[in-house]
Amino acid sequence: MLIVKKFGGSSVADKDRIYNVARRCIEDYQAGNDVVVVLSAMGKTTDKLIDLAHSINSHAPKREMDMLLAVGEQISVACMGMAMHELGVPSVSLNAFQVQMHTNSTYGAAKLKRIDTERIRNELAMRKIVIITGFQGVNKFDDVTTLGRGGSDTTAVALAAALHADACEIYTDVDGVYTADPRIVPNARKLPEVSYSEMLEMASLGAKVLHNRSVELAKKYGVQLVVRSSLNYNEGTVVKESAKMEKMIVSGVASDKNVARISVMGVSNEPGIAFKVFNCLAKNKINVDIILQSVGRGGTKDIAFTVAKNDVEATVEVIKENMDVFTAESYEVEEDVAKVSIIGAGMTSNPGVAAKMFEALSTGGINIKMISTSEIRITVVVDAYNADRAVRYIHDAFALAE
Amino acid sequence: MLIVKKFGGSSVADKDRIYNVARRCIEDYQAGNDVVVVLSAMGKTTDKLIDLAHSINSHAPKREMDMLLAVGEQISVACMGMAMHELGVPSVSLNAFQVQMHTNSTYGAAKLKRIDTERIRNELAMRKIVIITGFQGVNKFDDVTTLGRGGSDTTAVALAAALHADACEIYTDVDGVYTADPRIVPNARKLPEVSYSEMLEMASLGAKVLHNRSVELAKKYGVQLVVRSSLNYNEGTVVKESAKMEKMIVSGVASDKNVARISVMGVSNEPGIAFKVFNCLAKNKINVDIILQSVGRGGTKDIAFTVAKNDVEATVEVIKENMDVFTAESYEVEEDVAKVSIIGAGMTSNPGVAAKMFEALSTGGINIKMISTSEIRITVVVDAYNADRAVRYIHDAFALAE
Repeated sequence: MLIVKKFGGSSVADKDRIYNVARRCIEDYQAGNDVVVVLSAMGKTTDKLIDLAHSINSHAPKREMDMLLAVGEQISVACMGMAMHELGVPSVSLNAFQVQMHTNSTYGAAKLKRIDTERIRNELAMRKIVIITGFQGVNKFDDVTTLGRGGSDTTAVALAAALHADACEIYTDVDGVYTADPRIVPNARKLPEVSYSEMLEMASLGAKVLHNRSVELAKKYGVQLVVRSSLNYNEGTVVKESAKMEKMIVSGVASDKNVARISVMGVSNEPGIAFKVFNCLAKNKINVDIILQSVGRGGTKDIAFTVAKNDVEATVEVIKENMDVFTAESYEVEEDVAKVSIIGAGMTSNPGVAAKMFEALSTGGINIKMISTSEIRITVVVDAYNADRAVRYIHDAFALAE
Repeated sequence: MLIVKKFGGSSVADKDRIYNVARRCIEDYQAGNDVVVVLSAMGKTTDKLIDLAHSINSHAPKREMDMLLAVGEQISVACMGMAMHELGVPSVSLNAFQVQMHTNSTYGAAKLKRIDTERIRNELAMRKIVIITGFQGVNKFDDVTTLGRGGSDTTAVALAAALHADACEIYTDVDGVYTADPRIVPNARKLPEVSYSEMLEMASLGAKVLHNRSVELAKKYGVQLVVRSSLNYNEGTVVKESAKMEKMIVSGVASDKNVARISVMGVSNEPGIAFKVFNCLAKNKINVDIILQSVGRGGTKDIAFTVAKNDVEATVEVIKENMDVFTAESYEVEEDVAKVSIIGAGMTSNPGVAAKMFEALSTGGINIKMISTSEIRITVVVDAYNADRAVRYIHDAFALAE
């Protein structure tokens, strides 16, 4: 078997954890497998490098920023090579130049284009564990790039695809994907399997186990992922094309408090106004999530939508500048709201799901402020102080702990 | 003009110093020159990385050690790029992969083989300041190497040679090369020029301004160096093939306290014994410096030599193991000794020089324990507590301050 194993920054934060990871890799190696390890930067290394950069230039050019940040993973892989050497197992560390991890030139958020697997295959053929820097690449100018958020997961998935790996294991500090956040719902249950689509919906809703980008790449190339903990040997969650849902319609409940509701009120009830609003926001690179438009009364109607909390300021600016264009009478900002969602591949073919969710919220006396649905997700916006209770009521109503 | 400027770790130790270096480079750039900057790792970065490595594996494999250490210079060049950007000047940082700084595979002490100058020339043609990592290279396997001690100086000289630079400036924390260490001899005088050979003798005798390796490379390729301070605009010292010595016979006095004298006594007075002693030491990679052999009296003689202090333990071990082979009766170790030398290209043609040096020592009541001479150097071994006094007496005797 060829196994790609990815460990995040907290899994290699210090000497003990580095040795812990080294031993786990060696177990697979000694069982006769080919092992490729992808590492993030140790602990807070990346944050420290960013602080250093900002101390020198608060608007550091992105090319130089990537040149700087890439050292973080190089430190990790070199240290891992030293640990494996101490444990008597042949290994080799490789950075993005050595692997020829080709990306485009979008510094800070580069997209992987192509990986030359020759060097990796040669090292594996010599029975070495191959330790590769996550998060980084090289562009056509031979310049260093970084992949941005979730970059190391993406590196691991891309390597698994390029090497036709038999397994791609993403190690994190949780055991896998749960039916709900165990900190909110103590009896939340770990899911043995989820589909790519479900994982994507969950990730976008605050279950930050895997970055969407890596899941999308895994889906595209059919790379089956396992999410598991580097701190124990519990079986993780398999993320694959079509997960057996054990006849479950709903696989999980997620909440997201990083949300604000903006209402633009009293706009003229004529065609094209909504277009103007959302076109303006899009031009300013503001991502709008849930949209609600009131039925017009008299000559006016209200348009409400949600944005991420850190986009509120920019959104308000756009609205203020365009009150006339939008024909708006006033606007309102509510920051004390949260999204609560149920996710499940079986949802579309089961019409009673939404009703059951709303019933659960009603039982809890929780008012629904907005509703949005997709093929495999139903989301409601509620007051922020109700979010955790909402998750628990819904988790109970669908008997997800069982 | 194409100018190569090299700055050591203390010159880029923090934000202020980085900006200081950036401004100096920009001055040359704005005067219309092409500027290539070579940087060492910031301040104590390399020491910290070595500590990290040793905490993981006290016998870290050298390949992984180089992979780790190379990040130090990459941090420096990226930060310098950010500073120059802030100052509004186009620049580009390049590491050893990007420059294709080819070396052999002796990890930790790699030798430069070839530099591809195409990328550098292209960047210069675009009127950018090119900032290059010192100390590091890549070998034929595409693996990271480091050049070892004095590595960044060597990088700078090699780049100056490959680019046919008009000037190669080595910035350090002293103003240049002095007739003696100004901390020992307050009226020591800065030399406007020294020859490569003199510089080599001085460096090996504790005037640690330039590492010998970079001077040897400069001599080989005829690269004229200037040693000067990054903290002021004083004219430095030019190091070149044949320095005008202003009719000076002796250009400087240097001392070295990192020395011990070992005596092997009562060895049999027959041919081949000295060979056995020094062959044994060479096999154990112990560098022997000054050698003195007593005239035999009776059937035995004594052999004395100096080694660096950190080689004493290994030397004693070799001698102990080979007392029989060496036919030795006993041995002695003296660690409280020092070498004091005068260096000067005009020495060979001036027979009175040695006599004048010995006279100066005699005036100071300083006993000479050993003597060694080369074409351009006379060295004596004295008691360590006499070393500084010896330097001052000699400096005065040759009127070097004038």
